[in-house]
Amino acid sequence: MRPAHKEEMKRRARNICLIVAYDGTDYHGFQRQTPPVVAVQNVLEEALSRVFGDAVELAAAGRTDAGVHAAGQVVNFFTDGTIPVERVPRAVNSLLPPDIVVCRAFEADRDFSALHSASEKTYCYRILTGEIPSPFLCRYAWHIRQPLDMAAIKTALTSLLGTHDFSSFRAAGGAPISPVRTMKRAECEREGRELVLTFAADGFLYHMVRNIVGTLADVGRGVLSPEDFEAILEAKDRQRASATAPAAGLCLTRVEYDASWYKPEKD
Amino acid sequence: MRPAHKEEMKRRARNICLIVAYDGTDYHGFQRQTPPVVAVQNVLEEALSRVFGDAVELAAAGRTDAGVHAAGQVVNFFTDGTIPVERVPRAVNSLLPPDIVVCRAFEADRDFSALHSASEKTYCYRILTGEIPSPFLCRYAWHIRQPLDMAAIKTALTSLLGTHDFSSFRAAGGAPISPVRTMKRAECEREGRELVLTFAADGFLYHMVRNIVGTLADVGRGVLSPEDFEAILEAKDRQRASATAPAAGLCLTRVEYDASWYKPEKD
Repeated sequence: MRPAHKEEMKRRARNICLIVAYDGTDYHGFQRQTPPVVAVQNVLEEALSRVFGDAVELAAAGRTDAGVHAAGQVVNFFTDGTIPVERVPRAVNSLLPPDIVVCRAFEADRDFSALHSASEKTYCYRILTGEIPSPFLCRYAWHIRQPLDMAAIKTALTSLLGTHDFSSFRAAGGAPISPVRTMKRAECEREGRELVLTFAADGFLYHMVRNIVGTLADVGRGVLSPEDFEAILEAKDRQRASATAPAAGLCLTRVEYDASWYKPEKD
Repeated sequence: MRPAHKEEMKRRARNICLIVAYDGTDYHGFQRQTPPVVAVQNVLEEALSRVFGDAVELAAAGRTDAGVHAAGQVVNFFTDGTIPVERVPRAVNSLLPPDIVVCRAFEADRDFSALHSASEKTYCYRILTGEIPSPFLCRYAWHIRQPLDMAAIKTALTSLLGTHDFSSFRAAGGAPISPVRTMKRAECEREGRELVLTFAADGFLYHMVRNIVGTLADVGRGVLSPEDFEAILEAKDRQRASATAPAAGLCLTRVEYDASWYKPEKD
């Protein structure tokens, strides 16, 4: 967005914040793409523009990749549209395809930015274990046939907690920003045949969760030990980590903001 | 299948039984269709023919409609192929798209028929309640915005139990077979925002579950009383029942057989 254009946007009367859920399988990620490539942002902005009557441009908390899902993506935009905020979810959802849903809408403070005001994000990654895949989870989980050692995975996860340079788990093509992040939660739970990995941090590098999960899978298989995992983190070298885990298992579940007026809830 | 052809099939050495799960969203039902229309049976027979080395023709317990799912469909076929039965799921799954999965394979008795030997089938129907739809359930549940009276639905369900003429819930285009069926289970449970309706019977008429659910939804909304529902069943008149519920909420979860060697399990 050009700076002048951004100022023009900010002159609009309202700053609207939405919590959005989507199945990312059929989209080329969240971030707007040039047609005919379709991203979630393209579809959402088109529906919002029709409901609000001006050209909506979204800022989003997380730029999820192609095939990655969101249960609690947060976006905001400036508008002169007059529709009452409580009527927004239903009005927008009636124009959206069923794989994108606006869960909640708020009036936000003028200086709120879904991207820049975020203080913590939570991602979940689902792994389906066992010999037999599931037709109902093929869009939402990574199927790993071998048994995984959950105790070893849990031990490895503890080494992620706290403030670290996460360069070992950063994709080669990422922006040249600081690789230091603070991991606040790194957990693994079993739900039936699924392992659900949960990561909460003040921010994530490009492909960071999927690179961590790919390496954790090798810990679960016994290819790497928890000590190897810790050494890989400390090496700050992408070459040491394992292959990136598939997009389908990943979901942005929650974004936290410091502002006291804002309290996102999972729907 | 022509009778002579059927006899030829029966001369083959083995009768193989499979438990199959599929996401029916992208298929024109289970039953084989003329290409380019694709049914689950087309895809499954092609993969099985490659694995077994002869032209496989399936008999199936339930002919699920377009968009209807299965977690425990049962099929059988005759073959001279020699692959050990324990290697079948993995071999076939490697050739199938991720939305169709062979969960288990058995050697069956010569006279076992997945269609004719079935003694009981179980279908589940999922309704998502609440104002906001879910992008993750749009393929698997019927979204109903209004609150539903679960107690009224449970009362209505009891009138289905036992042996009845189910003509009121039979689709117009169904085969001219007896409309009498014995309902063994008719239950409703809440799972978070979802209502899960479970029906087990010795057999089901065409569209019977979806017509029952469409009418139960009107009971839940308060448009019909449980007594109205019972009167609709007793009227044996399709005109009295409500509109057919959408296919997406329906799943064939289990098929039971009398034969003691056979014990299907949900996977």
